Amino acid sequence: MPIFLALDFGGTKLTAGIVPPDGQQWISKERVYTRPDLNADGELRLIRELGEKVLAGRQPIGIGISFGGPVDFAQQRVRRSDHVPGWQQVPLAAILSEQFEAPAIVDNDANMAALGEHVYGAGRDCQTLFYVTVSTGVGGGWILAGQVWRGARGMAGEIGHIVVDPAGPLCLCGKRGCVERLASGPYMAQDAVAMLADRPGEGEILRQMVAESGASGETVSRAAAAGDKIAQEILWRGAQALGRGLGNAVNLVDPERIILGGGVSRSGVTWWELVRKQARAVMLADMVNTPIGPAGLGDDAPLWGAVASAEKLLAEIE
Amino acid sequence: MPIFLALDFGGTKLTAGIVPPDGQQWISKERVYTRPDLNADGELRLIRELGEKVLAGRQPIGIGISFGGPVDFAQQRVRRSDHVPGWQQVPLAAILSEQFEAPAIVDNDANMAALGEHVYGAGRDCQTLFYVTVSTGVGGGWILAGQVWRGARGMAGEIGHIVVDPAGPLCLCGKRGCVERLASGPYMAQDAVAMLADRPGEGEILRQMVAESGASGETVSRAAAAGDKIAQEILWRGAQALGRGLGNAVNLVDPERIILGGGVSRSGVTWWELVRKQARAVMLADMVNTPIGPAGLGDDAPLWGAVASAEKLLAEIE
Repeated sequence: MPIFLALDFGGTKLTAGIVPPDGQQWISKERVYTRPDLNADGELRLIRELGEKVLAGRQPIGIGISFGGPVDFAQQRVRRSDHVPGWQQVPLAAILSEQFEAPAIVDNDANMAALGEHVYGAGRDCQTLFYVTVSTGVGGGWILAGQVWRGARGMAGEIGHIVVDPAGPLCLCGKRGCVERLASGPYMAQDAVAMLADRPGEGEILRQMVAESGASGETVSRAAAAGDKIAQEILWRGAQALGRGLGNAVNLVDPERIILGGGVSRSGVTWWELVRKQARAVMLADMVNTPIGPAGLGDDAPLWGAVASAEKLLAEIE
Repeated sequence: MPIFLALDFGGTKLTAGIVPPDGQQWISKERVYTRPDLNADGELRLIRELGEKVLAGRQPIGIGISFGGPVDFAQQRVRRSDHVPGWQQVPLAAILSEQFEAPAIVDNDANMAALGEHVYGAGRDCQTLFYVTVSTGVGGGWILAGQVWRGARGMAGEIGHIVVDPAGPLCLCGKRGCVERLASGPYMAQDAVAMLADRPGEGEILRQMVAESGASGETVSRAAAAGDKIAQEILWRGAQALGRGLGNAVNLVDPERIILGGGVSRSGVTWWELVRKQARAVMLADMVNTPIGPAGLGDDAPLWGAVASAEKLLAEIE
């Protein structure tokens, strides 16, 4: 049976999976945590082992690769990683193509996830969508008229760094009030720690959860769900910033649907209500019914996009 | 000689022109001011007269129509006008096609201007651009991969109503800090009048110009150029809001180039410097060199887009 190999270089995890053509489920899939001491070569070694493990001696007919960082799609090279050293200008498709002896294609994780949702997930019935992941970072991928839209420099979809509040807190990118600065997990965790220090008599639930399991976006979400006021303040502010960014994106590009994925998107009904409410407050009347819904493929969206890309690549070669 | 008829329903003016296929200049072009008492029928009568005047008995082979308001492109109908009553669901292409006995196509003015600049103006050498007019309103049109991008509902490009300052002044659309609220001519004029009333000892130059020629975006621009502090405050604030909106648009869609037209874009070097500076402050590093330049066709951009649309329509029919 012919199979495709899908590989995903995530921020904290590496994943490999194999599926048959037009397959609706994985034949085999393995996920491992990457380690902070690894560089690009180390990650390449890890994913090679992972790929060989899921292949178990089988030969793939095509390989799709999702990379969690900027990719030069035209050159099929990684531009860089913002977290792992050594990724500058790495010809990742060529390396893995040689490794596994099959045609390979690489794209960034947001584009891959958008494509995955379009072909296999929550965007199967529409031709124009914006996929946004809200996780360690906030990033987006466009499907316009059935195709991935990468932009003139392959950088389209960077909703994480649009400014929604010029008076907001400072982002590492140098600007104030970016969507990512307000809505991403690590920044919410950072603000939680700072607010707990500033307001000693408040945030009892959050304080206890942080003491028990550390500060993270998930801690903030859980504490907010349990009724903690500081956690709610941070989470709701993030939801509103994201909503405002989505509303702006809709006014600019008019997609049929918005799909949200990533860990922070699992923060419960109030988070979703606030995202939708703020987005609709920003959208012009003609676009106000643009649906905003959850990803259908969860964390596997980039991996399914890698499958769809590999299928497309094969179809173009044949 | 075969000719195309181009018609433009602007906010304050109606224009008709004729050109030969692939023509680089107008054979004849006429522009008249519309009147506040006219409804849709009145404007249709005026443009019919104008069209007959420029045609002078000649028969067009195709007609392009630019409309200054939302258009249902798929249905080739005007959706409405925000200024002139009676335009709801008017099948404008069909009406003018019957009138002038030639195939006709209609689109909104921002899309037409974007296409005009792409085919005949400042965007001839690029495939992906964002055209923004800063005038009575602020609106945008996308060319993506050489095609007009209209969005899922034909509403793409509405940069005028993205929120760039949630603490900013209230816009008629109900939101605060829209680009149009801060950067368009009439709103700048409104703010000028209010600030002159609030600050009686200041704004001498602006005060005199308003007394002489009324409050308008142009008055604010001229007073700012002459050194008036209140006028500069208003104009620079508008330039920064526009720049922020453009930076956000670049991060989201990654166009090759941004082209600015409309009366406010003729506000001088400081305005341009501030627009560019603010836009670049918002753009991510990979996109920071995206050029922001003036329209090549001035106020004729929508009319040239109408020509390009009619040419395209004829090519599709043949």
